Amino acid sequence: MIIKGSLYIIPTLIGDYDKKYISNELQNAIKNINYYLVENEKKARRFIKFIDPKKNQNILNIKIISKIRDLNFNDLLEPCKSGNHIGLLSDSGCPGIADPGSDVVLSAHLRNIEIKPIIGPSSILMAMMSSGLNGQSFSFNGYLPIKEKQLIDKIKFYESKSKKENQTQIFIETPYRNNKLLSKLIETLSPKSMLCVASNINLQNQLIITKKVFLWKKTKIDINKQPTIFIFSC
Amino acid sequence: MIIKGSLYIIPTLIGDYDKKYISNELQNAIKNINYYLVENEKKARRFIKFIDPKKNQNILNIKIISKIRDLNFNDLLEPCKSGNHIGLLSDSGCPGIADPGSDVVLSAHLRNIEIKPIIGPSSILMAMMSSGLNGQSFSFNGYLPIKEKQLIDKIKFYESKSKKENQTQIFIETPYRNNKLLSKLIETLSPKSMLCVASNINLQNQLIITKKVFLWKKTKIDINKQPTIFIFSC
Repeated sequence: MIIKGSLYIIPTLIGDYDKKYISNELQNAIKNINYYLVENEKKARRFIKFIDPKKNQNILNIKIISKIRDLNFNDLLEPCKSGNHIGLLSDSGCPGIADPGSDVVLSAHLRNIEIKPIIGPSSILMAMMSSGLNGQSFSFNGYLPIKEKQLIDKIKFYESKSKKENQTQIFIETPYRNNKLLSKLIETLSPKSMLCVASNINLQNQLIITKKVFLWKKTKIDINKQPTIFIFSC
Repeated sequence: MIIKGSLYIIPTLIGDYDKKYISNELQNAIKNINYYLVENEKKARRFIKFIDPKKNQNILNIKIISKIRDLNFNDLLEPCKSGNHIGLLSDSGCPGIADPGSDVVLSAHLRNIEIKPIIGPSSILMAMMSSGLNGQSFSFNGYLPIKEKQLIDKIKFYESKSKKENQTQIFIETPYRNNKLLSKLIETLSPKSMLCVASNINLQNQLIITKKVFLWKKTKIDINKQPTIFIFSC
């Protein structure tokens, strides 16, 4: 029998670092794993220390995902072949979902390494389930364009898509551009479309609001630099 | 000051009922909430009992979501207005995501009731992060058609969409039709497209495989009646 290690996909916290969000499953994964592929070494060490303060950080073998394309995947996944588990961590939330990591997971599939997903937070999913909008069909589209004309065209494109396919549309934005995107969405979408703004999920100042666009016109909120998910449906 | 209760969106387990998957946040929510809106009363009581065996089940006030359209939302959300929290539960995973509940959440938004999402498992998200496919843009499309010709047309439609928009496509199926859908996907998709099959997530017999379609042609798996998520990308 060949003993093989698995690739654990380990979500990190998206808001307050509070133990109340952590399951034993996640705690045990961090306790038992010494090999990590991560988005950012400092943040990964901070998260591992938070989960298991007694863990000896000197024995950790940490490689950074962004540098992976230059490396040999075989080398990176070698610890699995010799029976060790590897943990995949991104800076916030679920690796591979609007975050790096999917290349590593695919590479593990191609090498028949078992994938073990751990339960944890995703701002996209938590915003979606909190929005009250149609969750039978939804599309995460990443970022909208920056330039004004393309931005407006794209908002209209996704609004008509939402209508035609009865599909909820989800976006993220670079936090310092949040207020600008919000005002463009309010200006551009039909007054009766529904718009959800979900900011600071799992933080003290969490703010999740869904209302019709014409009501948003009368609402003043400041989401500058606050991590936010935008969702609309019509 | 008006004291108002919140609507907690509480994911239930998707696989084994094992305490290792449960955070204190979820445990405290169940401990403190006596009003529930649920998909199925028996399953909800089983879950609540699993989380907090000491809870007196007689004091629980449980209403079923599927009957809600006939009821007055104001009455249902009334406990929040008088300072009580309400918990929203579906049978498995996250309420409102390929599951009932979004009407209740939207109704709470319209009444300015605070929404509090709890971290928990979603088979869609866990399959997506385990697939190794592009998670920068993905679309959950629910069910594919049953009739053969429409099914094939729709698979081709989504495959060409995946190519054009560089977007990963996610589907579910009624479990007893899983084998049929899998063989139709293998027959219909281009040999070089990537197909992920994620079955029994968080169960002992969890099976998550991603490979090119031409390699699937040589692979035999039986996923009849096993809860499964299908994901493809090309």
